[in-house]
Amino acid sequence: MAEYYSVPLVSAAEQFAKLPGIGMKTAQRLAYFMLNQPMEDVELFTSEILKARKSVHCCKICQNFTDTDQCSICGDEKRDKTTICVVEAPKDVSALERAGGFNGVYHVLHGLLSPMDNIGPDDIRIPELIKRLSGNVNEVIMATNPTVEGETTAAYISRMIKPLGVKVTRLAYGLPAGSALEFADDVTLQRALENRNEL
Amino acid sequence: MAEYYSVPLVSAAEQFAKLPGIGMKTAQRLAYFMLNQPMEDVELFTSEILKARKSVHCCKICQNFTDTDQCSICGDEKRDKTTICVVEAPKDVSALERAGGFNGVYHVLHGLLSPMDNIGPDDIRIPELIKRLSGNVNEVIMATNPTVEGETTAAYISRMIKPLGVKVTRLAYGLPAGSALEFADDVTLQRALENRNEL
Repeated sequence: MAEYYSVPLVSAAEQFAKLPGIGMKTAQRLAYFMLNQPMEDVELFTSEILKARKSVHCCKICQNFTDTDQCSICGDEKRDKTTICVVEAPKDVSALERAGGFNGVYHVLHGLLSPMDNIGPDDIRIPELIKRLSGNVNEVIMATNPTVEGETTAAYISRMIKPLGVKVTRLAYGLPAGSALEFADDVTLQRALENRNEL
Repeated sequence: MAEYYSVPLVSAAEQFAKLPGIGMKTAQRLAYFMLNQPMEDVELFTSEILKARKSVHCCKICQNFTDTDQCSICGDEKRDKTTICVVEAPKDVSALERAGGFNGVYHVLHGLLSPMDNIGPDDIRIPELIKRLSGNVNEVIMATNPTVEGETTAAYISRMIKPLGVKVTRLAYGLPAGSALEFADDVTLQRALENRNEL
């Protein structure tokens, strides 16, 4: 950037530009915004982010983010520990909890299998999942995204788990609620037909 | 937010949500992103922002952001100190410098007059501008935005300066380069007609 910018301002903007979905223009706007905030607010902003990064780690059981030894779901006595729902990322746990209706526990993989990106079974939390199955587990629900990587990961884990005598299920495919047939893609329509239910 | 989020994670997301143009959903995504970054990167992110906020202040002459006593433009001997271009914010200086073609100096108001928001002449850097005019100044170019507040501010400052015997000019209104007549709004077209030039 040209010399009429002050160097620390450019450095701050470059840091903002590293955030996902934030380009150089927005990053500059955010840097200018920060300069106009009271010093206490900027200190709070940076300290809360640092604190989150320092105190939040993975739950030793389900690998979801937590700042305690065990996350609140794994530590909840009312949750059914015999049903494990496997998801790609912590935000998927949030989505399912928000939706409600699931009373089991989770397992966060922190990624999906992707040979193209050199991500194999040991790069995501599959070993930790297998270890949990030695306990009293009845069902593993594969809740990875309905994408190529999500399907591959679900299929791979399912093949590993079945010999252990644990039931493996997959989230249902079909029409999203509130959608219209005419806008559904071909694969979704085919799956919705295949998996039709009796009324 | 519900209890299945870890508290420091929610605090970090709330800090991101304070940034302009960033909603709660994006803020959560940014907080999750931060948790997945190496500790050094997160520390660099927070320290660069803090450093910018701490070291950057207003140039004692033109009020633009700088981390030195005097900004690089005011300190440049090749710039014409007798022509002052008045802008609303530091980002406007960047825009004009990027465009090139101006060899004078700037004055950053850090705001515009806005009676609705209780912003009067002493709340923006108008006194600092008037003080500069006691020196050797030939022309003041009002380069505030072509909005109601921008116009009001330009008109107010112009009325204050004229009695001092300093020439006051305003950026030209007209069609933006590369645009099409059919998409220009009425006011812009009217101004473009009024200010037509002989070829």
